[in-house]
Amino acid sequence: MIEQDGPSERGAHYVRSLERGLAVIRAFTAANPSPTLTDVAKATGLTRAGARRFLLTLVDLGYVRTDGKHFSLTARVLELGYAFLSGISLPEVAQPHLERLSGEVRESTSASVLDGSDVVYVARVAVSRIMAVSITVGTRFPAYATSMGHVLLAGLPGDALDRYLAAVRLEPLTSRTITSPDRLRAELDRVRAQGWALVDQELEEGLRSVAAPVRDRAGRVVAAVNVSTHASRTTADGVRRDMVPPLLAACAAIERDLAADPRPNTGPAAWSS
Amino acid sequence: MIEQDGPSERGAHYVRSLERGLAVIRAFTAANPSPTLTDVAKATGLTRAGARRFLLTLVDLGYVRTDGKHFSLTARVLELGYAFLSGISLPEVAQPHLERLSGEVRESTSASVLDGSDVVYVARVAVSRIMAVSITVGTRFPAYATSMGHVLLAGLPGDALDRYLAAVRLEPLTSRTITSPDRLRAELDRVRAQGWALVDQELEEGLRSVAAPVRDRAGRVVAAVNVSTHASRTTADGVRRDMVPPLLAACAAIERDLAADPRPNTGPAAWSS
Repeated sequence: MIEQDGPSERGAHYVRSLERGLAVIRAFTAANPSPTLTDVAKATGLTRAGARRFLLTLVDLGYVRTDGKHFSLTARVLELGYAFLSGISLPEVAQPHLERLSGEVRESTSASVLDGSDVVYVARVAVSRIMAVSITVGTRFPAYATSMGHVLLAGLPGDALDRYLAAVRLEPLTSRTITSPDRLRAELDRVRAQGWALVDQELEEGLRSVAAPVRDRAGRVVAAVNVSTHASRTTADGVRRDMVPPLLAACAAIERDLAADPRPNTGPAAWSS
Repeated sequence: MIEQDGPSERGAHYVRSLERGLAVIRAFTAANPSPTLTDVAKATGLTRAGARRFLLTLVDLGYVRTDGKHFSLTARVLELGYAFLSGISLPEVAQPHLERLSGEVRESTSASVLDGSDVVYVARVAVSRIMAVSITVGTRFPAYATSMGHVLLAGLPGDALDRYLAAVRLEPLTSRTITSPDRLRAELDRVRAQGWALVDQELEEGLRSVAAPVRDRAGRVVAAVNVSTHASRTTADGVRRDMVPPLLAACAAIERDLAADPRPNTGPAAWSS
């Protein structure tokens, strides 16, 4: 992970209350979707009185409901992400191709973009509800441990990749996670030359995934598409043989449709400035 | 639409900066995903200096990027909505059933919940990219003009429906929109008895849609599922004959899967308090 501690002194413009309010929204998690005031104070580092002010403001604004003890987000918070999703063409363009690909290989498929040091899912077709990992649009994983991340990192301009590798802290998420920047750089070189990435249980035991890049008209990698599967259902060789060809075909089809769409493909490029 | 002007005097707890910061995030729209400082000031009613402070804070926090003139949201804003989506079971449970239904009727399908006076999409399978309406997870429409809204309103407890009807302003979105509270109440009675709702070009000319309710174990309507189609492709009779039976089957299957899922189905109930 990237060191996020950042400057303790912010510019004169900085609105600390906005930072704190957004932290309160992020204190609602999949593991604890209905926290108490105490839970929110603990998660954000705010005092109870401070957490209470932000929670009640969010209740006033309709983003949070409460029964007096527990707090829950309402569907209104989706409007904060909606502008991002509707302003870019990728999710809508990719969705039918992900559905076709998913039907063909009978596995879950996703599209993601790079945001900071994470991949962020922007479209997804899930075929199985048995898998324990709960992934939705907006889910984030560290790029270094995922196939889509390898594809997106391999597509970065050289100086941007240098900045990423200098800043990243490679934590072993399984025994197979690449934890050396030099080994990661070598793997990204291989991925770039090969045109796709296979990640075998580097993010989570049992999870095997293959990804390929989606490029814009200028040839820049703007997104990645993956097929994910359980290690118990397929071998790494089986993934290469059976899933890579339809995956590459799906990416080519998405690129064609993106090129015909007048909207921005994805957001502004990560690590580019 | 509901009158949202609300109290000009907020409680002592109220954090005005959080309200303003969230308004700045909402100033990024599908129609203008990369506004200038002037655009954001105009959309929010903030001064340019005020809008600038919030925008630069959002840049510091990684939610916004700028080239110096235009501002864009980053994928990070999705994390604000992610907690809502991942904390409830409906989107994940509904998705495979929507895909099956969409494959069967060859039309787009969606699931939504009621939030205030709007339906909010929480899952969607789109079969056509020709349709001009760009709908993603998070899109909102006024409940009174949509088939999912009719189903969700018909499922409200009587006192909650009374509050809705007393507060709502029924604006004619097309020549067919129901604009009288009495006629709307009569239509909702019919929908409740019939078990599904057909809305024929009341939201937008050419758009015809049929919806049915999804109930929790206690029998409460917690969501609606719809099939939407172009008026040019089908007749209202054809929709009733060909789409209602598979739609009802899909809702029954979602209800079975929801009942087996330990997580909350959707967020807290709307209009219930």
